Amino acid sequence: MNGYADTKDSHLKRMRRIEGQVRGITRMIESDKYCIDVLTQVAAVNKALEAVALNLLDEHLKHCVTDAVAEGGQVADQKVAEASAAIARLVKS
Amino acid sequence: MNGYADTKDSHLKRMRRIEGQVRGITRMIESDKYCIDVLTQVAAVNKALEAVALNLLDEHLKHCVTDAVAEGGQVADQKVAEASAAIARLVKS
Amino acid sequence: MNGYADTKDSHLKRMRRIEGQVRGITRMIESDKYCIDVLTQVAAVNKALEAVALNLLDEHLKHCVTDAVAEGGQVADQKVAEASAAIARLVKS
Amino acid sequence: MNGYADTKDSHLKRMRRIEGQVRGITRMIESDKYCIDVLTQVAAVNKALEAVALNLLDEHLKHCVTDAVAEGGQVADQKVAEASAAIARLVKS
Repeated sequence: MNGYADTKDSHLKRMRRIEGQVRGITRMIESDKYCIDVLTQVAAVNKALEAVALNLLDEHLKHCVTDAVAEGGQVADQKVAEASAAIARLVKS
Repeated sequence: MNGYADTKDSHLKRMRRIEGQVRGITRMIESDKYCIDVLTQVAAVNKALEAVALNLLDEHLKHCVTDAVAEGGQVADQKVAEASAAIARLVKS
Repeated sequence: MNGYADTKDSHLKRMRRIEGQVRGITRMIESDKYCIDVLTQVAAVNKALEAVALNLLDEHLKHCVTDAVAEGGQVADQKVAEASAAIARLVKS
Repeated sequence: MNGYADTKDSHLKRMRRIEGQVRGITRMIESDKYCIDVLTQVAAVNKALEAVALNLLDEHLKHCVTDAVAEGGQVADQKVAEASAAIARLVKS
């Protein structure tokens, strides 16, 4: 169903840390922290999310796309097109 | 102390929505959702955080940097250098 | 040898336009054009290069990676790892 | 007129190197070089252009925006708004 079964725990651990960082940013704004310090935290969360995304994508290529290509046919083409679209969204985000 | 006093509520509203989106990504991974759907949500959160950051930065320039420059002297130079460093971190994140 | 045989002409056309845009930026700086106007052109070139990169990557997945996966074995794993590394460089650039 | 008078030579040197790199990418495509190697060069050019942009922006804040703010009034507000818009374009590009 998905390509990250082996690394699910590590993804969940990273996501929980990111949840904490995001709540931290909300609290910084609530308590009127200095703009630049808030911006530093936002950049850190973006980098952490990017790392999760690149890992998910790598596993998606390794498992889902590879399996579809091995089967061949239209599903394979569709999986590659879908992966390319996801990559474009990440590069632009 | 900071440059976002006027827009604090709007920032907090955006941050709470982002907190919800991040928890949503964790739940997607917990329930083994499809990789590409998780990636789409990650790209959406990155865009939402980017919007918060660009707003904070605009207000920082409008208030903190402008006030420092109006006073002049070393503090002004320091504020501009600090803003440039924050911009570089955002562009690279 | 590479995955863009079918679209080589279109890539070359885009690259020649980008070469012209980059020379345009050099000339803007030579003739002391306004900073913000130079920055607008730099952002445009970055977007144009990004479009070339996303197209090349899509074709690479469609042809080179797909062919390697169809053959299977170590080369397939290596091609996927190499594509993931290239995606990471693009996302971070 | 612009904020980069002191560093114009260094910007021009960087831009000429970037022109060479971009022509290099065109030649790589002309001679059917491997997709991944082309992508590596595209990422390098993006980073080099980003460095030029961040330097121009820093000098713009240091000189043009600072001078406008010191004079005050509507022009100051306009310069800050213009800088914020340029930063947003860079972050999104």
